[in-house]
Amino acid sequence: MRLRNKPWAGDFLRNHPQFVIQQPFEWKGKWNDLFGNEHPVHIEVGTGKGQFIVGMGKQNPHINYIGIELQESVLVSALKKLKEEELPNVKLMNVNASQLAEIFAKGEVERIYLNFSDPWPKKRHAKRRLTHHSFLSIFESILADEGEIHFKTDNQRLFEYSLVSFSEYGFLLKWVSLDLHQSDFTDNVMTEYEEKFSKKGQKIYRAEVKLRK
Amino acid sequence: MRLRNKPWAGDFLRNHPQFVIQQPFEWKGKWNDLFGNEHPVHIEVGTGKGQFIVGMGKQNPHINYIGIELQESVLVSALKKLKEEELPNVKLMNVNASQLAEIFAKGEVERIYLNFSDPWPKKRHAKRRLTHHSFLSIFESILADEGEIHFKTDNQRLFEYSLVSFSEYGFLLKWVSLDLHQSDFTDNVMTEYEEKFSKKGQKIYRAEVKLRK
Ligand SMILES: C[S@@+](CC[C@H](N)C(=O)[O-])C[C@H]1O[C@@H](n2cnc3c(N)ncnc32)[C@H](O)[C@@H]1O
Ligand SMILES: C[S@@+](CC[C@H](N)C(=O)[O-])C[C@H]1O[C@@H](n2cnc3c(N)ncnc32)[C@H](O)[C@@H]1O
Repeated sequence: MRLRNKPWAGDFLRNHPQFVIQQPFEWKGKWNDLFGNEHPVHIEVGTGKGQFIVGMGKQNPHINYIGIELQESVLVSALKKLKEEELPNVKLMNVNASQLAEIFAKGEVERIYLNFSDPWPKKRHAKRRLTHHSFLSIFESILADEGEIHFKTDNQRLFEYSLVSFSEYGFLLKWVSLDLHQSDFTDNVMTEYEEKFSKKGQKIYRAEVKLRK
Repeated sequence: MRLRNKPWAGDFLRNHPQFVIQQPFEWKGKWNDLFGNEHPVHIEVGTGKGQFIVGMGKQNPHINYIGIELQESVLVSALKKLKEEELPNVKLMNVNASQLAEIFAKGEVERIYLNFSDPWPKKRHAKRRLTHHSFLSIFESILADEGEIHFKTDNQRLFEYSLVSFSEYGFLLKWVSLDLHQSDFTDNVMTEYEEKFSKKGQKIYRAEVKLRK
């Protein structure tokens, strides 16, 4: 995602503690307290401009959503959308996916969404892909027993890589579509990238995986 | 595959015992004796007109191939190809995939090829698909510990179904391509259906799976 220079981004995020979690590491093991209820927690890793997480939050008020994004300058767009909607069940967090095991205790996350993750096409960059086994191991360490990862992308190579990576790591493939928008999947909430790529005529790939027991 | 009335087909197959195995059930546990060597045995289920199995036999003389086909009238085309090439490492067999557990002992088959298997698109026909769990259980019962299934198809829905079915059954996805002819897979031998569909511009899907231990 293109980086724009937004010197005000950090302050803007800090000035909205009701939407942007300021001390994520302090909530480990206590996320239900933060939301003030026992609803399941679903996170999106690489939230971008937030259309998906805000859309999901509106669609499913009884699920708690957290959008995780590395770049402050991108997360501010998500914050703007969330401010408009004032959803109590959606929060944002400016952290790196590599830190998630220090933020969530084992079992605290019921579902992880990965949407249009950066493909890192070069083989030597494979370990940066969010479906590389090093990230899958972090995800496993925070997921509930029946927890799932839901993955969407337009990138054929990343999808192929990810199916194999999930399987080799020990995830079970529950559901797959090689053309989401022509599939029988209902209630799809589009992301910014999904809208852009599907308008260009590209097919969207989608998979649901869960841990094997 | 279209059935042509070929009353002579049965006799033609019976008159070529050097290529067409006449009493498949009698070789259970003794397939190395039939080939007269210890080379691995790879089978193709639903061989059709035999272009793949004959091509593979030429490419890999140190592997024993058996092409399995339900329809006599289709298998005669494979026999004609095999007669021309006179390959000692390729045999054909006119049986139903559902009988394989009575034909091979556990571990006798190193690899199973499924190429452009009939898709049976209706849900109520799912159990006829060669990647339905009832067939996978037969395949498991004849495969070697490190045995694999290699699957190709042009049919998106069958491929989606099969990836999930393999995974749920307990197979591990080793390799996948959503566009075989643009992938880095070398030494591909095309089947009759593969030539037909790829000429029409359709993408070919391919997966390799192996049993999880
Ligand atoms: C290609 S964009 C997709 C954005 C959005 N999910 C969509 O579908 O429109 C990928 C996003 O993931 C973020 N990202 C990449 N690696 C990350 C990481 N390790 N931790 C958190 N976010 C990350 C990037 O900053 C970028 O905003
Ligand atoms: C669509 S054709 C594909 C033929 C060939 N593999 C190709 O790719 O050109 C499928 C073939 O599988 C055979 N077949 C279907 N079910 C079978 C079964 N249960 N046992 C053996 N052969 C079967 C059919 O008779 C047909 O010839």
